[in-house]
Amino acid sequence: MSSTFGQNIKFSIFGQSHSEKIGVVIDTLPAGFSPDFERLSAFCARRTAVGKEGTTARKETDTPEIVSGLVDGHTCGAPLCALIANRDVRSSDYEELKVLPRPSHADYPASVKHGGFQDVRGGGHFSARLTAPFVFAGGLVMQLLEEKGVRIASRIRRVGTVEDRPLDPANVDGALLDELLQKPFPTIGDPAPFQEEIRKAQADCDSVGAVIECFVTGLPVGIGEPMFDSLESRISSLAFSIPAVKGIEFGAGFALCEMRGSVANDPYFIDETGSIKTKTNRNGGILGGLSTGMPLIFSVAFKPTPSIGLPQQTVNLKTKQEETLTVRGRHDPCVALRALPIVESAAALALCDFLL
Amino acid sequence: MSSTFGQNIKFSIFGQSHSEKIGVVIDTLPAGFSPDFERLSAFCARRTAVGKEGTTARKETDTPEIVSGLVDGHTCGAPLCALIANRDVRSSDYEELKVLPRPSHADYPASVKHGGFQDVRGGGHFSARLTAPFVFAGGLVMQLLEEKGVRIASRIRRVGTVEDRPLDPANVDGALLDELLQKPFPTIGDPAPFQEEIRKAQADCDSVGAVIECFVTGLPVGIGEPMFDSLESRISSLAFSIPAVKGIEFGAGFALCEMRGSVANDPYFIDETGSIKTKTNRNGGILGGLSTGMPLIFSVAFKPTPSIGLPQQTVNLKTKQEETLTVRGRHDPCVALRALPIVESAAALALCDFLL
Amino acid sequence: MSSTFGQNIKFSIFGQSHSEKIGVVIDTLPAGFSPDFERLSAFCARRTAVGKEGTTARKETDTPEIVSGLVDGHTCGAPLCALIANRDVRSSDYEELKVLPRPSHADYPASVKHGGFQDVRGGGHFSARLTAPFVFAGGLVMQLLEEKGVRIASRIRRVGTVEDRPLDPANVDGALLDELLQKPFPTIGDPAPFQEEIRKAQADCDSVGAVIECFVTGLPVGIGEPMFDSLESRISSLAFSIPAVKGIEFGAGFALCEMRGSVANDPYFIDETGSIKTKTNRNGGILGGLSTGMPLIFSVAFKPTPSIGLPQQTVNLKTKQEETLTVRGRHDPCVALRALPIVESAAALALCDFLL
Amino acid sequence: MSSTFGQNIKFSIFGQSHSEKIGVVIDTLPAGFSPDFERLSAFCARRTAVGKEGTTARKETDTPEIVSGLVDGHTCGAPLCALIANRDVRSSDYEELKVLPRPSHADYPASVKHGGFQDVRGGGHFSARLTAPFVFAGGLVMQLLEEKGVRIASRIRRVGTVEDRPLDPANVDGALLDELLQKPFPTIGDPAPFQEEIRKAQADCDSVGAVIECFVTGLPVGIGEPMFDSLESRISSLAFSIPAVKGIEFGAGFALCEMRGSVANDPYFIDETGSIKTKTNRNGGILGGLSTGMPLIFSVAFKPTPSIGLPQQTVNLKTKQEETLTVRGRHDPCVALRALPIVESAAALALCDFLL
Repeated sequence: MSSTFGQNIKFSIFGQSHSEKIGVVIDTLPAGFSPDFERLSAFCARRTAVGKEGTTARKETDTPEIVSGLVDGHTCGAPLCALIANRDVRSSDYEELKVLPRPSHADYPASVKHGGFQDVRGGGHFSARLTAPFVFAGGLVMQLLEEKGVRIASRIRRVGTVEDRPLDPANVDGALLDELLQKPFPTIGDPAPFQEEIRKAQADCDSVGAVIECFVTGLPVGIGEPMFDSLESRISSLAFSIPAVKGIEFGAGFALCEMRGSVANDPYFIDETGSIKTKTNRNGGILGGLSTGMPLIFSVAFKPTPSIGLPQQTVNLKTKQEETLTVRGRHDPCVALRALPIVESAAALALCDFLL
Repeated sequence: MSSTFGQNIKFSIFGQSHSEKIGVVIDTLPAGFSPDFERLSAFCARRTAVGKEGTTARKETDTPEIVSGLVDGHTCGAPLCALIANRDVRSSDYEELKVLPRPSHADYPASVKHGGFQDVRGGGHFSARLTAPFVFAGGLVMQLLEEKGVRIASRIRRVGTVEDRPLDPANVDGALLDELLQKPFPTIGDPAPFQEEIRKAQADCDSVGAVIECFVTGLPVGIGEPMFDSLESRISSLAFSIPAVKGIEFGAGFALCEMRGSVANDPYFIDETGSIKTKTNRNGGILGGLSTGMPLIFSVAFKPTPSIGLPQQTVNLKTKQEETLTVRGRHDPCVALRALPIVESAAALALCDFLL
Repeated sequence: MSSTFGQNIKFSIFGQSHSEKIGVVIDTLPAGFSPDFERLSAFCARRTAVGKEGTTARKETDTPEIVSGLVDGHTCGAPLCALIANRDVRSSDYEELKVLPRPSHADYPASVKHGGFQDVRGGGHFSARLTAPFVFAGGLVMQLLEEKGVRIASRIRRVGTVEDRPLDPANVDGALLDELLQKPFPTIGDPAPFQEEIRKAQADCDSVGAVIECFVTGLPVGIGEPMFDSLESRISSLAFSIPAVKGIEFGAGFALCEMRGSVANDPYFIDETGSIKTKTNRNGGILGGLSTGMPLIFSVAFKPTPSIGLPQQTVNLKTKQEETLTVRGRHDPCVALRALPIVESAAALALCDFLL
Repeated sequence: MSSTFGQNIKFSIFGQSHSEKIGVVIDTLPAGFSPDFERLSAFCARRTAVGKEGTTARKETDTPEIVSGLVDGHTCGAPLCALIANRDVRSSDYEELKVLPRPSHADYPASVKHGGFQDVRGGGHFSARLTAPFVFAGGLVMQLLEEKGVRIASRIRRVGTVEDRPLDPANVDGALLDELLQKPFPTIGDPAPFQEEIRKAQADCDSVGAVIECFVTGLPVGIGEPMFDSLESRISSLAFSIPAVKGIEFGAGFALCEMRGSVANDPYFIDETGSIKTKTNRNGGILGGLSTGMPLIFSVAFKPTPSIGLPQQTVNLKTKQEETLTVRGRHDPCVALRALPIVESAAALALCDFLL
């Protein structure tokens, strides 16, 4: 358990923030699939900090090396292993963290769990660095989903106290997805206030949280299973495997609790093409754990990056004394921008057991 | 997949709303455990509608019959199978639902998924009736967790627009859990406004949503796994297997997105017993997917019961004409009260793979 | 783990030899399948002792009660639960076995494993009685496999020192399967010497072992997976879940070890229909874990029934003294005849994840 | 599925015979374990052809590079990934195999399964080359098992028509294991006739089969599960993931079928240390799927290496004409010697879910 996911296609992610390599084994992609690696690189690049304002100074280009599973550019039915080197590593930054756990990081429970043997450098296996192979896997699988007409994109719905313009969840379509995927800062409304919110946090040596909203179009009706393999169970399970995620909601989510059933229910109608649709989409395209044919929509809550430049109170695990810690190292003031392809990948990975 | 859950202990839930029996196979409980069936019945009774105002007129006493796995009152290491009879069934209520899917129910996607062969009576396998064996399993496992010092309780945090009084998530303790478990309507503040909210919805032939907040105390530090088996992944996966759940958040959840890191982070200190604690508990007792030793707290958003007495628009699957549907049958105007032990069971079932 | 099997379709078997009920949950059969219960009963009846010479005096008719998953005679996509009552139970037979483990039974290791809490009556969950739901599940699934052209039958290849006539493994076809399935004592040659071998053992209050050979026809080429989900891995895993099985071989099996490669290899040719076949079939229809299109053939070795009427030496677990035990109760002198549908069921259950 | 194995510890094996790298991800070893890499190398070296008479001319030293999961020589609780480079690759040997499947290899069914997209070079993912990471994982886990007192060794029981001297399965102990592990050609009797059998096959451009018998000592009583996770199910499942294995038997195995119960049953007694033992061990240390405390013993049947230098008949998949094929490339005339650590690894991998 832990870092292996999936039933029909299995993903096994390995590595630590500062291990020699990180990577993923995908067991097994259908044979005869020729990934478009240029597009995949572009997808993965959205996760990296390279060329992004307001992101960590640690820059990794993350070009994966594929050492198995491919022959002449196509999959061959054998597990595909992709390796990513950790090049830009400065491990000395993290020495003191062996005894001084960073607040709101995994340091302290990981130390107890592993009896002090965990890799403390950069958070080890708990680092967001591990989202690199996650996004590689998600981006790869997304190309297979696209062949079946399924598309995925996301927007920044909130940063700190700034909320994006509402959209009609019953009318999410390919045009909107294209628009979001092309924007360098994908919001419906003006991105400036969001960027300003991040800049202010950064200027204060602080960080700020965000909500990412993800859209999936083109799902056939009836995908998913009741109970333990509901679409929501599978997607949430993967979303919470992303560091810093603390909440998820489908469709109107928590806002549904405040509604009456007569308002919350999505009435059926026949659209101009003769298809059965719902007028509203407050359920986010899922009923009874199954896809309804409407756009699948979910939002993921990211807490503010726990690594901040301000002094914080912690406890020395050795001396059992309280101490003040100022986290050094290179960190994002907000995960929003880099989180987009990670959330999209969670959706893709969750769906592939149902569709591939 | 679908209705089987768990790695070391597996739960296989079966039945439909109107099948002869519903039940669960638990494979495998440790041998030599003598369940307290009186307490278990009391726990399951919290889920049933019997004696509750503002709940469905369908009354099932749900006394389970245990047909395997027990010898002389103790477990014997063989799978335990518990059967619950469906006695109070009026299937004629549901005939028209074969072609008229109820809005916001699983009817339509289930019909597509199963090619029209699904059991439409009462929602079949998608019915909340299936939470009876779910709660039986959860209550049973909870007794084993209690032997390890782990306790679980929950409160109604919100009904419609009424929100319960805030509490300090760093100070959730046994006394609070006792208090909640003893209250017939477990809120911190006055339950009257919540009950009024439900009554009003019922009077309007309508329904209303709710948020249930669940508390787990006594977890050792370091329980859980990174990534795909994070505590959040496991708990959310089970929470979304409950009908009508559309959101989940851990600790401060979505509210964290609006905070700065300097506010959201939980600073460490040494408490009077020499233990490492955090002053605040905005992360809800989980960091990096692992338990921190602080109370584990999560909230689950339930949409309003989709079955309402008001006319709704739907589509006749046979004639492909739009029609107006008035759902007959017996339904809760709000799931809040019956949902409490279901949410607690989700927590218990999620934890038992880590602790048993 | 333990009594739950399968990936896409899961089987959860429960019960003990003398529990109130035994049974199986099948999660999930495709919806819209109408089992032929008359044929299924006939299949299950082959496993029961009713009307068979040389089998146990314990007679169970084993008519299963299906309490979920069926609507109007067809599957509905919900888990199917079948219950079988244990009626003909004489538990007093087994009292002394709490402290006197029967040689070559699970009694002693089960007692250690479960700390003495195991169900000793009739061997509890370790009893061959549990093959009743196993065969029910296998027979049900076999009807689905037949819809895809896959057929399964078996013969008694050996009883004690009596070996059946050889057959050509490259020429196993529907006619042979029909013949075997219709014979009350399915051997190629004269059944009399086998029956005599069993009668002699019975007359001596002793038992005798057997080899069952199983044949699967109609498998498409390329079914199975390399490595851990090879056809051999899956089939053997299920075969060894049958009590008293101590060996399995595919094709010529152990005899292959004595051959040269030039003899053992199966050369390819084009048959009269233009299909690729092998002239011989020493590999039993499997190469690299995948089906070759030739008949799949495997043999399973059953040890002699460990329950014999002769006095045996054992150890009193309480007094730690050696004692002599004479097993009472009702037992088969040879499993051969009843084992046939069990082995066929193992094949069916193993194949259904690949084909359904 | 396919190349991922395990429940609590998961193994994901990747690579093809001629891919850039092969390897394994082990998710997750307990933290704080410091593998003895010198011993591990020696263990893996037993599998390689280097320095062995009568083995393939392809020589790989197989020093694995560990790129994650280790910090300062100890495990850190993160998945361990080991990479092995494929250096000595001559792919041109295999060009014609795209259309000319080698008899008794996976070539033909793999081609059908993967629509012609499989990696034909050296058998791709079906190659015995993939046993290198399998043995690495097995050898690593074996060191953890040894810390719990469990030891594993094996002997060559048969090569072609030459059978090793019998041994008493009730008296397999540490001394015997030491002896076998130190022998370059581990048989009880004189190795010369076995070596002669191999040499003769090689001289004839042919190959010959073998039986490997594996011994596990130090298992506590009661390890394993009934039914689907019986020790036999788990071990056989892994044994059949080894290329060329066509049979397995536990204890006396197939020979049990010829015995009477009065002979086959293992009677209990109290040994000089006061422990409960059996006088004989025909069940190979397993009853009811559980360990009995006696030495666990199983034998694995390997067919003759299918690659032989003699001309064989095959079918051209393109032209659908029969052709004669002479397999070039470098191959072992008998797998016996190299198979020993592979079989021992299968035992270790099967046991680790029960013991770690």
